[in-house]
Amino acid sequence: MTALEDRSVRPEVTTGPIRGSHKVYLDGPDDLRVPVRRVELSTGEHHDVYDTSGPYTDADATIDVRAGLPALRAPWIAAREPVDGAATQLAWARAGVVTPEMRFIAIREGVDAELVRSEVARGRAVIPANRCHPEAEPMIIGKSFLVKINANLGNSAVTSSIEEEVEKMVWATRWGADTVMDLSTGRNIHETREWILRNSPVPIGTVPIYQALEKVDGDPAKLSWEVYRDTVIEQCEQGVDYMTVHAGVLLRYVPLTAKRVTGIVSRGGSIMAAWCLAHHRESFLYTRFEELCEILRAYDVTFSLGDGLRPGSIADANDEAQLAELRTLGELTAIARARDVQVMIEGPGHVPLHKIAENVRLEEEWCGEAPFYTLGPLATDIAPGYDHITSAIGAATIAARGTAMLCYVTPKEHLGLPDRDDVKTGVITYKIAAHAADLAKEHPRAQARDDALSAARFEFRWLDQFHLSLDPDTALSFHDETLPAEPAKTAHFCSMCGPKFCSMRITQDVREYAEAHGLTSVEAIEAGMSEKAEEFTSSGGRVQLPIVNG
Amino acid sequence: MTALEDRSVRPEVTTGPIRGSHKVYLDGPDDLRVPVRRVELSTGEHHDVYDTSGPYTDADATIDVRAGLPALRAPWIAAREPVDGAATQLAWARAGVVTPEMRFIAIREGVDAELVRSEVARGRAVIPANRCHPEAEPMIIGKSFLVKINANLGNSAVTSSIEEEVEKMVWATRWGADTVMDLSTGRNIHETREWILRNSPVPIGTVPIYQALEKVDGDPAKLSWEVYRDTVIEQCEQGVDYMTVHAGVLLRYVPLTAKRVTGIVSRGGSIMAAWCLAHHRESFLYTRFEELCEILRAYDVTFSLGDGLRPGSIADANDEAQLAELRTLGELTAIARARDVQVMIEGPGHVPLHKIAENVRLEEEWCGEAPFYTLGPLATDIAPGYDHITSAIGAATIAARGTAMLCYVTPKEHLGLPDRDDVKTGVITYKIAAHAADLAKEHPRAQARDDALSAARFEFRWLDQFHLSLDPDTALSFHDETLPAEPAKTAHFCSMCGPKFCSMRITQDVREYAEAHGLTSVEAIEAGMSEKAEEFTSSGGRVQLPIVNG
Repeated sequence: MTALEDRSVRPEVTTGPIRGSHKVYLDGPDDLRVPVRRVELSTGEHHDVYDTSGPYTDADATIDVRAGLPALRAPWIAAREPVDGAATQLAWARAGVVTPEMRFIAIREGVDAELVRSEVARGRAVIPANRCHPEAEPMIIGKSFLVKINANLGNSAVTSSIEEEVEKMVWATRWGADTVMDLSTGRNIHETREWILRNSPVPIGTVPIYQALEKVDGDPAKLSWEVYRDTVIEQCEQGVDYMTVHAGVLLRYVPLTAKRVTGIVSRGGSIMAAWCLAHHRESFLYTRFEELCEILRAYDVTFSLGDGLRPGSIADANDEAQLAELRTLGELTAIARARDVQVMIEGPGHVPLHKIAENVRLEEEWCGEAPFYTLGPLATDIAPGYDHITSAIGAATIAARGTAMLCYVTPKEHLGLPDRDDVKTGVITYKIAAHAADLAKEHPRAQARDDALSAARFEFRWLDQFHLSLDPDTALSFHDETLPAEPAKTAHFCSMCGPKFCSMRITQDVREYAEAHGLTSVEAIEAGMSEKAEEFTSSGGRVQLPIVNG
Repeated sequence: MTALEDRSVRPEVTTGPIRGSHKVYLDGPDDLRVPVRRVELSTGEHHDVYDTSGPYTDADATIDVRAGLPALRAPWIAAREPVDGAATQLAWARAGVVTPEMRFIAIREGVDAELVRSEVARGRAVIPANRCHPEAEPMIIGKSFLVKINANLGNSAVTSSIEEEVEKMVWATRWGADTVMDLSTGRNIHETREWILRNSPVPIGTVPIYQALEKVDGDPAKLSWEVYRDTVIEQCEQGVDYMTVHAGVLLRYVPLTAKRVTGIVSRGGSIMAAWCLAHHRESFLYTRFEELCEILRAYDVTFSLGDGLRPGSIADANDEAQLAELRTLGELTAIARARDVQVMIEGPGHVPLHKIAENVRLEEEWCGEAPFYTLGPLATDIAPGYDHITSAIGAATIAARGTAMLCYVTPKEHLGLPDRDDVKTGVITYKIAAHAADLAKEHPRAQARDDALSAARFEFRWLDQFHLSLDPDTALSFHDETLPAEPAKTAHFCSMCGPKFCSMRITQDVREYAEAHGLTSVEAIEAGMSEKAEEFTSSGGRVQLPIVNG
């Protein structure tokens, strides 16, 4: 009996629209329906935002986690033909074919479909879309597009259940996770992953070596190519869209970590290092990489080449071990691409701000501009409990330089396992980092949301401001702590200034006057202002000053 | 009856050492005693960190808020002579005099006293130290030194009391605030400030126009040079160390804000704009600036030239209004320095990452490298409720470029008034941003703490890791949520890996072996490892994999 047939398991998941918005589908060619989250404004206008939440936020959708989500991509997958034996987005892109996924993504990103195809063709962007995961809504990871974020989930040995993991996935995508990595271990790995895949609107990533290790009772030395290969095939068949493979951990690199402050901190990396030491040979991930490519190509699963030797502290950043592995990942990228398999490259970790640019430069140079996918990096080691913040600083910086996807870090990093609130905090924090980078890259769509929210703030449209924010619930609750009254949300003042006067109100007066009189020269505006000033003077405003800002 | 004589007012403040550390005083020349917070490690070593908390964290100190703190600087102030009529740190520095404050700071920063003197002499650093505030421990603000942070406090119209404000000041400095701005308004401004000054171990800043406005019933048009002058003198006499003066808001600049998305968002800026419009003249802050310099010089109060026209949104960053005012601040800086008055320059606000470098470049070029003191800046507008994070991203970035002090932003920014928890969150978040910048600037002392904490993490010295962190209480509580047992804090495993094996443990094995055999060449290390590997294999470790990291 599969998990989906087990009636006793019936996860409760969060459904319904996010406050102040509702799901809308944009129509595209070939009956494409591209979801966006539409924020209706009090001005009568609306603002559409990129939406990762799937049918769960669609008030009209019927959610049955036993049935799973509709197989959105099934007809596309059934209809098309391989190119020279390869049925991958890379193969089609190279052949000049614009797939339905590419058209879907073009609408979603607000760019031309040809840009999507050409970026995929040159390997600078990837579309993680296993043909066995038709439920996922197509998305793209590449420096020419919106910066994406990943949320890590997975039941650890004893702490959580299948139901909790499905809800965590739904919860993470509700707040903006573009992909989810299922790092489940211990009991029910296969079953948990099945539930997540069948119900996930976003691509799912895994680290197959984790499950393979379970199969050999947790002893790295007992791992073998056969056990690993069978595990990869099992996961490909289930629909995993991208897999982290630590194939760059070579035997001769392991000693380079001996003098580090924090040695090897990647679990995958340490597992492979343990195997290399146990057998005193190069790992099967490296020696059997071509065979691995053949398997992933058959399903169009994307490689996420893992940085098993990434630095785990500021002291170890950009060191010989890290960079030696990165060079090897570049060689493996070329091998995979030659077989039409999509590739992205994982990055650190812990890196001080002045060493971040070099990480991006070398990754692009050595790995043929494959999309960079980094964990943070943390810009300092000294704030356990706040590593979502230490890493968001590094993440925004590295994404502004061209990193395509950011793996989130929660407040529990280094200390424990994230709960539901930690997952939301991690996702929102990383949406901030990704958006700050989109602004820095001057993505055509990025600033529109800032401008809409700031205009609402300036015009005292409080609810519009909250609804346009990344977390309307939190913004509203913070505001209500000071001014709970409903009228306060429409009044022309804020909790920090009095009702008759505030810093924004006076400039609003200035602007309205200037506009009303169609003033053009500074002199004319000043003249007008002296009049306006008398009105203001006679109104005798009262200032109550804030304790924030100068 | 003054506040200090009023026995009915007796604030309760937080005292006692921060977990895992205790106060130590380093002896210097001339009986200098420089406070540091000493973290005792389980290895028998200790790590000293910069300490802003004053006597409140000294277990041996007797705290009586009615008596105030000891007048640390009184004998130095009594002993010295003016230079050409000027008794300011700038005047002495220019005359080649190394003051006791400079010697104190040199020990505190771990640099040569001559560097302190020369940086002050060229105006690239300031020492805010009003001769009427002898209780404060000397500190320096300049790009050649550790990045500093400011916390804004102040009772607003109805929400808080004197007792609460004194405790908030103590609370903010406990967690690392280098200066505190008292932005109190409404009732008891003078009395509240008196309590804060007499009990503050850090320099206190104010925005005098706020109190002046109270004196004219909150009507900007009724403000006058006389009312403002008297207010400044009153505050100088009380001991305010630096004052925000929005003297760069010129009448002709006001119209430049008319087309902005968010107009004028600085309260001081909007007050002066209102005055300029009401009188259709340049403000008295600008026309009487020389007289203002004479007053501040008499007390060695430092100017913090305010950016009244700073951008309040991404859309308005680096615009004509902002830059026009910055040029004027540069002119005013020269006027003040000619009179031996110290100056720093306030900066934005809201700036996208790609426009931050230009802010620092222009400020240094136009304002003679005066220390830059910025509010954030926020790197995006779309996350109300998380603006401590949006601004920490901008703050770390601008500080890495040379900004000397960062004004914190709390989660309540734009929404309401920060409570005690918000103040702590704001301070810790900004310590992270400041430290990330210190690392990027390769400050000699910055990385030592990261290395000490990472070594503790790698060696499973859990309590050492927590005690070396910015917030030991939070790190410990997060850890205990997963592994409450006391032994877990000394055990060689973490909540994310099993007891026999984890990614750090294996590299620790590798390192120990390499060190034990004094191996030098990669071959030798590999040879050694194959042995070590057998030991490892026979030990049959068990991995329980984490749900964080790849």
